[in-house]
Amino acid sequence: MPIFIGIDPGLADMGFGVVSVSGGKEKCLAYGSIKTPAGQPTSERLLALFVKLGAVLDEYRPIRVGIEKLFFQKNVKTAMVVAEARGVIRLAVAQRNLSLIEMSPADVKLAVCGYGLADKRQVQTMVKTLLGLKEIPKPDDAADALAVALATAHWRL
Amino acid sequence: MPIFIGIDPGLADMGFGVVSVSGGKEKCLAYGSIKTPAGQPTSERLLALFVKLGAVLDEYRPIRVGIEKLFFQKNVKTAMVVAEARGVIRLAVAQRNLSLIEMSPADVKLAVCGYGLADKRQVQTMVKTLLGLKEIPKPDDAADALAVALATAHWRL
Repeated sequence: MPIFIGIDPGLADMGFGVVSVSGGKEKCLAYGSIKTPAGQPTSERLLALFVKLGAVLDEYRPIRVGIEKLFFQKNVKTAMVVAEARGVIRLAVAQRNLSLIEMSPADVKLAVCGYGLADKRQVQTMVKTLLGLKEIPKPDDAADALAVALATAHWRL
Repeated sequence: MPIFIGIDPGLADMGFGVVSVSGGKEKCLAYGSIKTPAGQPTSERLLALFVKLGAVLDEYRPIRVGIEKLFFQKNVKTAMVVAEARGVIRLAVAQRNLSLIEMSPADVKLAVCGYGLADKRQVQTMVKTLLGLKEIPKPDDAADALAVALATAHWRL
C-alpha cells in the first residue's frame, strides 16, 4: 500500500499530510502541523523542523513526497525564511533517497478538485470528502498539506 | 587556538574560509569552494553541500561560524535558491551546536578594512595581507569567505 506525504512549508508552522492509496481509494493516515517557537534562533528552529519531519518520514516511509513550489510573497523577508525551511525539507527528503515532487498551487487544485482555479474552501472540502473525514482538517496548513499529498499520489511521473 | 569559519553561501559554489587567531595574529588554515553540478536536482545538490560542509566543520571544529546576511538580488529566483542553501548551512551549524554570526557585507568590510564602503578588491587585498598569503585566494567566493571568517574572529559578541 503506497504512502504519499505532502508538505506545506513554513518555519513557524509546517503542515504535513500522510495518505495511502489502495484499490484507487485514498486513506488519511496522519496529518498535523510542526510548530517552532518564534523566540528561538532561526537555526534552532530549522534543526527542530528537520528532526521532526525526519521522524514523520521514517515512521511512514512514503514512496514520494510532494511540496508546493515557492511563489512570490508580499513580504520578501518571509519568502526567504520559507525558502530556508524548504532547503531543510529538501535535505531530509534527499537523505532518504525519496523523490520530491514540486507542484504549483494550481497543480494541487487541479488534482484535488479537477479545477485549477478552485478556492481554498473548495480544496479543503474535497480533501475532507476524498479522505472520508468527518470534518475539514485543522489547522489550515495541515489541510493544505493533505491536498498536496493527494496531488502527489496522483502525480503522473 | 580558536578557529573561525566563514561561509559565502550559494548552491553552485559555496565558499568557505578557515582561520585561527593566536596572540592577536590571524592565520589561514584552509579555504576553498564547494561546487555542485548544475545538472543535478536541487535536493541532491543541497545534500552534497550539507555533507561536504559538515566534513569541513568536523575537521576544523570552529568555535564560531560566520555567514553573510542575504540581501535582495536582481534575480529573485536565484535569491530563493541561495536561501535554500542557507537553510542547509544553518542546519549543519546548529547540529554541531555552534553559534552562527550573521553579518551584512558592510559589517565584513568594516571588520576587514576598517571601512564599510570598501570595494571587493580592497577587501581581497586586506585578506591577503592579514593572512600573510602570497596571492589573493581564488576563487572569489573563497576569498569572500575568508573575509567573513576574519570578521567572525573579531566579532564582538
